[in-house]
Amino acid sequence: MKTRKNMKIYFDNAATTQIDSEVADSMTNVINNIYGNPSSIHSFGRKSRVLIDEARNKIAECLNVNPTEIYFTSCGTEAIATAINGCILQKDIKHIITSPIEHHAVLHTIKSLEKKNLVEVSYVKLDDKGIIDLDDLKEILRTKVRSMVILMHANNEIGNLLPMKQVGDLCSDYNAFFLSDTVQTMGKYKNNLQDINIHFATCSAHKLHGPKGIGFLYINDDTSIEPLILGGGQERNLRAGTENIYGIVGLAKAFEVAYRDMEKNQEFIQGLKSYMLAELKKNIPDIKFNGESEEDGLYTVLNASFPLNSKTEMLLYNLDIAGIAASGGSACNSGVVSISHVLKEIGANNTRIPIRFSFSKYNTKKEVDFCVEQILNLIN
Amino acid sequence: MKTRKNMKIYFDNAATTQIDSEVADSMTNVINNIYGNPSSIHSFGRKSRVLIDEARNKIAECLNVNPTEIYFTSCGTEAIATAINGCILQKDIKHIITSPIEHHAVLHTIKSLEKKNLVEVSYVKLDDKGIIDLDDLKEILRTKVRSMVILMHANNEIGNLLPMKQVGDLCSDYNAFFLSDTVQTMGKYKNNLQDINIHFATCSAHKLHGPKGIGFLYINDDTSIEPLILGGGQERNLRAGTENIYGIVGLAKAFEVAYRDMEKNQEFIQGLKSYMLAELKKNIPDIKFNGESEEDGLYTVLNASFPLNSKTEMLLYNLDIAGIAASGGSACNSGVVSISHVLKEIGANNTRIPIRFSFSKYNTKKEVDFCVEQILNLIN
Repeated sequence: MKTRKNMKIYFDNAATTQIDSEVADSMTNVINNIYGNPSSIHSFGRKSRVLIDEARNKIAECLNVNPTEIYFTSCGTEAIATAINGCILQKDIKHIITSPIEHHAVLHTIKSLEKKNLVEVSYVKLDDKGIIDLDDLKEILRTKVRSMVILMHANNEIGNLLPMKQVGDLCSDYNAFFLSDTVQTMGKYKNNLQDINIHFATCSAHKLHGPKGIGFLYINDDTSIEPLILGGGQERNLRAGTENIYGIVGLAKAFEVAYRDMEKNQEFIQGLKSYMLAELKKNIPDIKFNGESEEDGLYTVLNASFPLNSKTEMLLYNLDIAGIAASGGSACNSGVVSISHVLKEIGANNTRIPIRFSFSKYNTKKEVDFCVEQILNLIN
Repeated sequence: MKTRKNMKIYFDNAATTQIDSEVADSMTNVINNIYGNPSSIHSFGRKSRVLIDEARNKIAECLNVNPTEIYFTSCGTEAIATAINGCILQKDIKHIITSPIEHHAVLHTIKSLEKKNLVEVSYVKLDDKGIIDLDDLKEILRTKVRSMVILMHANNEIGNLLPMKQVGDLCSDYNAFFLSDTVQTMGKYKNNLQDINIHFATCSAHKLHGPKGIGFLYINDDTSIEPLILGGGQERNLRAGTENIYGIVGLAKAFEVAYRDMEKNQEFIQGLKSYMLAELKKNIPDIKFNGESEEDGLYTVLNASFPLNSKTEMLLYNLDIAGIAASGGSACNSGVVSISHVLKEIGANNTRIPIRFSFSKYNTKKEVDFCVEQILNLIN
């Protein structure tokens, strides 16, 4: 097997993705040609307004929802903050049900509300793969009617997928609000939100080959909440601030491309993951995999677990030196190398070294070969 | 005087500005080449991190502040929301002093806090030009020690400039926090924030030929507040969410260009404004000007006031048809033509028609000639 020495490999697509060239072109076109304030009523403003309307329609069509259910935000984190704060305040919710392996955008926001005595929080039980115990969820829902349930669709670190429809139905049975952080699955599956009893869902464009700095909050039309950011009446009074028109156009284009090529990309990326899984298992007898990433999980994420020793301890660092970008946990910690709260919760990092490889349509089988070769060189 | 018929003229630069081509190029370069998550510790992430650090340093240098005092946000409105909510919560402030002619981002945020009984609000007196009564401000500060004072540097509709240093000193005398919405003046004057007793200032890139979707909050290093959006530890735990790297790079480039060309642009734009003022006065005997825009106000804003009649009533609309974009008030009302709260407060729209012309470095004397010619055609 022959591979180039100076290959640069990006296997951290759960942290962020490369912008698709079609997306980049759509953004550059707006950056260079259109600048009116979408709230201005003159011709310059109307041009920008049309772009936003078209983008909203395109995304709504993909998700099979109404355009009025899509509210653009600056990122997934803001979408989460808006949904949680808005729902708690507007709906007078006093109880949140979540899991300890949610993203920090969820956990830190909830902690802050709990500290102010605005909500009580229950954490649903997990098994050692991090799978949500639905009986436990049901039991909490039964005792705490009219809660807000917050559970992510796909876990960003271990790839576990939530049975969205079942959870939505349970929430419906007990009159609970349901927010699912769908940041990792938007554009990866044909999420048909009409089929699910869900109140809030989130998106961050840069997870699906769109730009950073833009996302949206889906709020179903039967639900209304208070805004987090007030001012001009943008986004039907739900999110003030002049709209990021290039971001919005790029996000819509990313959806268009993702939906157009979805089957092809799913098959290709699942193939890369399965291949790497097989190669690692074949060559490293005592390797394990965290969460559901070995089986039914998100097809872009493989969270490998290496036995702890002096060589695997430095593996992530040495892979970086070899030109291979992977991750020890979530990227959202501002450069701080900290123990992943997700892996800690499922006891996966006590005596082993976790490395998350996450793939995209831009990766290749050759890259997997090179990566496995490097890993073997580094740990043997 | 001969002018082209199909001229498209943009005289609404207080609402938003065209992206500078140098800014556009800097953004396009990042969009096409750099995509790592700045929070990732591998080489892809570090490349993005460097861009953000460089941008922060560049902006801090322009404003003569520390890089640690610049916190990137998605827009000016978010910066305002962060400062107000954060200051009220963290500093246990129970009283806000503001003016009735602030931007809605300020007024609506305050109203919401007032409605929840979190703060009491005093509005400082204005004269009929909208000038802040500093004696009244002092008197309120005296009776309500430890307030938060929120007054904008330049009013976006009538161009009035606040004596920042005096207000900052007053705030300092009475132990008050001072937030100035500096969105209209960033990049237009060499604001030296070190010289002013100020705690918070705001910026929105798209007001200074930078991109939409990015801005910052200046918080002086002696002040710490709670974040509005929690999650990953971005922006030193003040603002979670993966950073908008193209926006941040574009914002810094916009600062660089604005500071480099500031004297030249100031002189040129002030010249356009003075010329239009003179032409309008010469040709329309009963024209007036709102606020301080005729005299010492912001050099980019001219708020003309036409006598009300059947022709001036449709003037803004007919100017748009003639290809000239101007504004009746603020743009931040999502396309709704509503009466400006600013002009209402100073009694400027009772029997007259206000039109705001706001200029940039991309406007020309020829455009002013064409615009004045069209106005005369339309109202005579």
